[in-house]
Amino acid sequence: MDLLKKKILTEGRVIGTEILKVDSFLNHQVDPSLMKSIGEEFASVFANEGITKVLTIEASGIAPALFTGLQLGVPVIFAKKTASRNLDPDTYHAAVHSFTRGGEYIIRVSRRYLDAGDKVLLIDDFLARGRALLGLLEIAEQAGAKVVGAGVVIEKGFQDGGDLIRSMGVRVESLAIIESMSEEGSKITFADKKNGHMN
Amino acid sequence: MDLLKKKILTEGRVIGTEILKVDSFLNHQVDPSLMKSIGEEFASVFANEGITKVLTIEASGIAPALFTGLQLGVPVIFAKKTASRNLDPDTYHAAVHSFTRGGEYIIRVSRRYLDAGDKVLLIDDFLARGRALLGLLEIAEQAGAKVVGAGVVIEKGFQDGGDLIRSMGVRVESLAIIESMSEEGSKITFADKKNGHMN
Repeated sequence: MDLLKKKILTEGRVIGTEILKVDSFLNHQVDPSLMKSIGEEFASVFANEGITKVLTIEASGIAPALFTGLQLGVPVIFAKKTASRNLDPDTYHAAVHSFTRGGEYIIRVSRRYLDAGDKVLLIDDFLARGRALLGLLEIAEQAGAKVVGAGVVIEKGFQDGGDLIRSMGVRVESLAIIESMSEEGSKITFADKKNGHMN
Repeated sequence: MDLLKKKILTEGRVIGTEILKVDSFLNHQVDPSLMKSIGEEFASVFANEGITKVLTIEASGIAPALFTGLQLGVPVIFAKKTASRNLDPDTYHAAVHSFTRGGEYIIRVSRRYLDAGDKVLLIDDFLARGRALLGLLEIAEQAGAKVVGAGVVIEKGFQDGGDLIRSMGVRVESLAIIESMSEEGSKITFADKKNGHMN
């Protein structure tokens, strides 16, 4: 998706060998207009799949997921990372290892909003080691729901998450796949598509 | 906002005397179409204020804030509740007491995205004791930014947060103000507007 790649090249900042900061438009400050385009792109790519729910994880997945759900005309569920009095006690849940934060966290989805009749599209902002998507897949499996695929805004193609998830037979479509990046001059190169028809 | 009130009456569930669960459309499962209407309403109410940024807190504020920002044509910033390698170390921050979760948490906004030239609209999903809005006001003050007002999706009018924030001279516009609610039969009544011209 050219609009997104241009934004990454213009505003992305590479730190060390693994961190790409895109917090000017994706995961801290958010560009609503770009998110709308991203949502429309995901909806177009996964059209005619009979999707009934979009599933993501708080917080950075919400923006792209929301516009995807709007365009598809279906509800968006964001899995919660923290327990709260406001969440139903009766949940699907999965442990997710975070390399960014260190340690594990539990994601939860109320059983009320996902069941065996659902066809689910997973959305997330980043795909690196694939652990967040693994967690969402586990939750969909607990619900007995069918996963039609995963839409990812930025995939770090030089890490193993994309291969891992695709090897499980999940259709993964990433709007931008980073082949390599280096801190010096924040140099970023993009890869061609992986299995998908985009990029 | 009639569409919202109808949704609250139809799907809201009252638990005890203080918890209103609206996780079927607002803060777990999200209705993107309703969020779009809510964003358009906030943008209309706060039109002609020269707003440059919409500021909210992850995760439940993101959906209404995003559509408000889209409609106003400005970026949306969501304050982070957790420290992360991905957030700039140089942040504005404020402590927020949570009655729902118990205890305090710190919200953070990168100094990169808010400064004295900004006119900020605060958005949040709920206003109860007002502590989240207090935290956002503190962050805006640290940045030297002007706060033009706060847009709230659901205000618990029977708690003191709305009075507290309004007494500070902040324009608070709530799309639905709950006057009273009781668990038996999930009975909910709405109040008229408070200072604002909506409701």
